[in-house]
Amino acid sequence: MMKVLLIGQGNVASHLYKAFSTTENVSVQQINSRNLINIPIVDIIVLAVSDDAISLISKQLGEREELVTHTSGTVNINAIQQKRKGVFYPLQSFTKGTEINFSNIPFCLETKHKTDYNLIEELANSISKKSYNISSQQRKKLHLAAVFVNNFTNHMYSIGNEICNSNHVPFEILQPLIEETAKKIQKISPKEAQTGPAKRKDEQTIKNHLEQLNSQQKEIYKIITKSIQEN
Amino acid sequence: MMKVLLIGQGNVASHLYKAFSTTENVSVQQINSRNLINIPIVDIIVLAVSDDAISLISKQLGEREELVTHTSGTVNINAIQQKRKGVFYPLQSFTKGTEINFSNIPFCLETKHKTDYNLIEELANSISKKSYNISSQQRKKLHLAAVFVNNFTNHMYSIGNEICNSNHVPFEILQPLIEETAKKIQKISPKEAQTGPAKRKDEQTIKNHLEQLNSQQKEIYKIITKSIQEN
Repeated sequence: MMKVLLIGQGNVASHLYKAFSTTENVSVQQINSRNLINIPIVDIIVLAVSDDAISLISKQLGEREELVTHTSGTVNINAIQQKRKGVFYPLQSFTKGTEINFSNIPFCLETKHKTDYNLIEELANSISKKSYNISSQQRKKLHLAAVFVNNFTNHMYSIGNEICNSNHVPFEILQPLIEETAKKIQKISPKEAQTGPAKRKDEQTIKNHLEQLNSQQKEIYKIITKSIQEN
Repeated sequence: MMKVLLIGQGNVASHLYKAFSTTENVSVQQINSRNLINIPIVDIIVLAVSDDAISLISKQLGEREELVTHTSGTVNINAIQQKRKGVFYPLQSFTKGTEINFSNIPFCLETKHKTDYNLIEELANSISKKSYNISSQQRKKLHLAAVFVNNFTNHMYSIGNEICNSNHVPFEILQPLIEETAKKIQKISPKEAQTGPAKRKDEQTIKNHLEQLNSQQKEIYKIITKSIQEN
């Protein structure tokens, strides 16, 4: 039985607590980061707190024998002050109130010592089928890539929604296409999957499209079209 | 039994032929657009040909009593020369060789006459659960919105892939996040779903990200960040 102490009360902490609670080989306790007195001895401490707080709370923990990890996509492993440090980062966007099934969520893992890696890998595998050994430098790049594939993609959906709304077309018509676009790249690379007027260099359609957009949408359309054509 | 004549040999024509063939209430024939002699009398003629060819092939068909439709997302209904004209547009991106299940693909339908609408709606419903009455003007806007949610989104995936590749991180780690992002907007609007440094106005992270990008990626990052912040 692996003993885990979760520190934090936010989204990630709550979701992790729920997931660990349902696993047979993990015994989990959750505490508030403002109440660090009388901390029990466990196998792994997980700081599921905001990026800014990781280093501070790790310091407040003082010397510990356990493996101490954080759950951030961007913070370096060295923000952990204890000797046995690690990262336990579930790559997903967490929304309050939404149920999370961790089994398909990839965990990006990092430790300083090989034996600690085995430990944290066992913890990840207790709730997920996928874990990866990712260095702090790689994790930083992954987080940057996620801004494009998640945040910026979502903004493309927003613009599509805007165009539909202002023309009284139900946006839901586009939902199957959106999901198909997301699934397609499981089989072929995004570069191979690229279609549309930019890819075809269909200048007449591009010109027609630009005429229908507002100035901000136009700027976005132009720069992405250029980027598609040059790649 | 509804008799359908499919004209064309491309992707859309092939996929539609396969789908209609498995339906009980449709009898379908497919012919090449270069072989328009001795066309049988049917209920609906579907021109599944390239955008540029629609008007020409419709002219070559001459006077017909049937409802004549095309399958394009951009061409106006009036490109059809016959009196009974319509549009039968399945909104999806079709890839050669990939199996298509039409049941969840939305059909955008348009006719000049109400009775013809019933006919084409019956045809759509024979293979799909979803059909919408969409005017040529609305279809034009839908196609524009699709460029953002499909083509431009795919380019965001491409950039994410590039960042992963050049840092030896497996792109597949991002796949669950990509699919979650696509599914999330079924429940909440893309505007409500927006997260990330741009939305949070986290200028330090934005600055860090910009320093890691090449000049074209940087331009895209800046303009989308600006658009997220202003919307």
